[in-house]
Amino acid sequence: MQSKNPKESRTILTDLVLPSETNPLNNLFGGELLARMDRAASIAARRHSRRIVVTASVNHVAFNKAIPVGSVVTVEAAVSRAFKSSMEIYIDVWVEDRESGKRTKANEAIYTFVAVDETGTPVIVPALDPETQLEKDRFQAALRRKQLSLVLAGKMKPNDATELKALFTE
Amino acid sequence: MQSKNPKESRTILTDLVLPSETNPLNNLFGGELLARMDRAASIAARRHSRRIVVTASVNHVAFNKAIPVGSVVTVEAAVSRAFKSSMEIYIDVWVEDRESGKRTKANEAIYTFVAVDETGTPVIVPALDPETQLEKDRFQAALRRKQLSLVLAGKMKPNDATELKALFTE
Amino acid sequence: MQSKNPKESRTILTDLVLPSETNPLNNLFGGELLARMDRAASIAARRHSRRIVVTASVNHVAFNKAIPVGSVVTVEAAVSRAFKSSMEIYIDVWVEDRESGKRTKANEAIYTFVAVDETGTPVIVPALDPETQLEKDRFQAALRRKQLSLVLAGKMKPNDATELKALFTE
Amino acid sequence: MQSKNPKESRTILTDLVLPSETNPLNNLFGGELLARMDRAASIAARRHSRRIVVTASVNHVAFNKAIPVGSVVTVEAAVSRAFKSSMEIYIDVWVEDRESGKRTKANEAIYTFVAVDETGTPVIVPALDPETQLEKDRFQAALRRKQLSLVLAGKMKPNDATELKALFTE
Amino acid sequence: MQSKNPKESRTILTDLVLPSETNPLNNLFGGELLARMDRAASIAARRHSRRIVVTASVNHVAFNKAIPVGSVVTVEAAVSRAFKSSMEIYIDVWVEDRESGKRTKANEAIYTFVAVDETGTPVIVPALDPETQLEKDRFQAALRRKQLSLVLAGKMKPNDATELKALFTE
Amino acid sequence: MQSKNPKESRTILTDLVLPSETNPLNNLFGGELLARMDRAASIAARRHSRRIVVTASVNHVAFNKAIPVGSVVTVEAAVSRAFKSSMEIYIDVWVEDRESGKRTKANEAIYTFVAVDETGTPVIVPALDPETQLEKDRFQAALRRKQLSLVLAGKMKPNDATELKALFTE
Repeated sequence: MQSKNPKESRTILTDLVLPSETNPLNNLFGGELLARMDRAASIAARRHSRRIVVTASVNHVAFNKAIPVGSVVTVEAAVSRAFKSSMEIYIDVWVEDRESGKRTKANEAIYTFVAVDETGTPVIVPALDPETQLEKDRFQAALRRKQLSLVLAGKMKPNDATELKALFTE
Repeated sequence: MQSKNPKESRTILTDLVLPSETNPLNNLFGGELLARMDRAASIAARRHSRRIVVTASVNHVAFNKAIPVGSVVTVEAAVSRAFKSSMEIYIDVWVEDRESGKRTKANEAIYTFVAVDETGTPVIVPALDPETQLEKDRFQAALRRKQLSLVLAGKMKPNDATELKALFTE
Repeated sequence: MQSKNPKESRTILTDLVLPSETNPLNNLFGGELLARMDRAASIAARRHSRRIVVTASVNHVAFNKAIPVGSVVTVEAAVSRAFKSSMEIYIDVWVEDRESGKRTKANEAIYTFVAVDETGTPVIVPALDPETQLEKDRFQAALRRKQLSLVLAGKMKPNDATELKALFTE
Repeated sequence: MQSKNPKESRTILTDLVLPSETNPLNNLFGGELLARMDRAASIAARRHSRRIVVTASVNHVAFNKAIPVGSVVTVEAAVSRAFKSSMEIYIDVWVEDRESGKRTKANEAIYTFVAVDETGTPVIVPALDPETQLEKDRFQAALRRKQLSLVLAGKMKPNDATELKALFTE
Repeated sequence: MQSKNPKESRTILTDLVLPSETNPLNNLFGGELLARMDRAASIAARRHSRRIVVTASVNHVAFNKAIPVGSVVTVEAAVSRAFKSSMEIYIDVWVEDRESGKRTKANEAIYTFVAVDETGTPVIVPALDPETQLEKDRFQAALRRKQLSLVLAGKMKPNDATELKALFTE
Repeated sequence: MQSKNPKESRTILTDLVLPSETNPLNNLFGGELLARMDRAASIAARRHSRRIVVTASVNHVAFNKAIPVGSVVTVEAAVSRAFKSSMEIYIDVWVEDRESGKRTKANEAIYTFVAVDETGTPVIVPALDPETQLEKDRFQAALRRKQLSLVLAGKMKPNDATELKALFTE
């Protein structure tokens, strides 16, 4: 199975914020953005694996910037690291000012998807070859995030999470 | 400002999985579940603070169990710890078998909301008094999660995250 | 088949009123509330019968109180009486004031569901044992409502509706 | 204020049953039909009154006939009687067989709307002049239904509901 | 196969403009109107052919008049000409002023549908017999539009489009 | 006002075909695709003009290829020519095969948008400088399409539509 690079899975979903998707302050609901990111990320995972994919987990997501109704929001998703049958997807969210055209980073998020066959059984996916420096950085950090995930799920002892532990003990 | 207990913010959202909310395996989309949890959690945060609330972050969420179309899904959310103007909301998701009536835990998730005034400025919220053992455990763990959040956002040095660090160095 | 009590079917659906669900006065559309009540009631009927259930009828519903956009609405449904294969579901709708936290009764409604098998044929459901005084009152009144239903549908002569007739002739 | 006839408010809403609107038997959800009828009825009430209108109540609705996904459903609504500021709307629902083109009556329902001004205060509406025999029959029966409504709401004593009482005592 | 007249396929879809369907000027989105017209036209095509129908093309549509939120919009569709297995559907869109009750023409549009069997293979449809003068005019013009369609798709040489060519050379 | 090139307005909307958006053959509804194209095109028009934009017209759209449920659909829109205050947007629609990853052209469509101020009055937009050969071809053809539009709307005599007329008389 030939490895792929992040460019091959890059997925862009540019769409408007509709009035039905906003909270009492007229900003995009957190829940709606989570759903859009899930759809874009699932397409990226599918482009990398060419299989059915299901959401396995969502890493920590911070909502730092309110996104007002009528905004143009661009969700960009690409595979940042592939494991056996799971893929980490890194998502960047941009908001665009109508008058100046300036794009501002609104969010980053990380989702994990698993590739499965028609019965829901996990299947092997291609490896990922990062190319740019940013892709390489995200690829490196993915292992640390996977350990954190396993520790939080009680499936790995903190002491065995060597990459993660280094953060706190150096 | 009088402190409150988790019971006062507990929010129950029981609803069906409709065909329009499913992926190619006919299970609930991860993104849809994230949106439902966001709505229930925002109501819990609002019940605790009696203010406008906005999603600040979503902690790690694992999707361990597929939820088929036609299922009855119960999302239960309650404030697990209140900080200055932010509240951690703990969410339990249950799926119910129609024939046996048996409820199975499908997911847990943790969202953070911030209480704001009409201009979007953060305002102080009441403290939380946990009562049951489970509520006390979640209250304790919330501090560790807040440190993890700050570390991941680059707003706290790993070495200062004493609660979190203890996990890896004991 | 063992009888059940109302608590076993009680279903709570707490959710926000979104902007897309409102009329020109910015209040929840009557039609949207009817749809939410139908979903909650169908889950209650399903919890009592553990079968597929379909809406058979909706009794008189009065909309006494406007429910503004952004409100938290709680729909509570429970089986109030079971007949051969049909179940009467009593629904209470509450609206919650964000600032005071006060809950106000907004509506009551009564739906009837029929339990069916995969071919749509009606099947027998368990009897209902009311426990509290309110449950007993609703249980009693259900028979009168069933007679009214049959009279209105032309399936029972007014003179044979003894429970109902008593209302007008005492 | 000049009276109007039912033809002037007649409203036709013909639309498909989409997959997202169906229950586990692949038939239209009762709640969805209630919502469509509410929209058509509100337009009829608005055509009669030329004011903002809000749903006041829904009379007994029976769901006698399942409506499968992909069906063409026609909802026809017209004012059947006007009182001071309220209007009774009679709704007929038809389903159309694609192959034979045959239309079958699927439901009847009766909604009541109130005309209000921008502040939500009730305003006077024109009287209704029924023309056809069916329109005259529905006009007559509307008074009986209004009494039933008041009795059920505890706003009229059964003994004062003379039109209604006659049904049971003749 | 017996021919039909336009009355037999006439389809009326009267509905409100909901807040979730509007652009930043609070008018109905062009895309939403296109979707409603597609649903009404598909029902008209189905009534004429009594077969499954799929959208084949949309002719030039001009949006001359903004339709504000809360408007009552009536979409009227009828078959204007039938070819072998395709049908041209002519659509008139009306907007209604709440206070005066005046109906204004908001749009006209022309869609083409093809009748197919369960495998998606085109099937023969009945011919159309126009009756009124307007129906006859639209029937005549349909041939010119079909030629334009074929020319634009590169399936007919401009010189062979005799009806169309006459427009420019007379 | 500085002219822009098509790259600056290029908008990509990649998303899944959900079950709620399909017709009885389980393919994407024509109306849904029209609505997605309208949203993508409006963003392209807004990126070019940095103003509020409203749909003015949709040129002939042919639906040559059914798009099955679960497909990944990419809508790419860019300004193809700018006139005084209107912009022609050229839209390419691609469908992607999950297993082979092969992209197939599913549709082309052309929408026209007008830039307006807050009162709905048209405002001047920048000119367009096409760069690639494809962009230049589309730029040239846009004038012919504008003439066709004006002729069809009865706002230009066929004899004055010189670019268009040449097609039929050479």
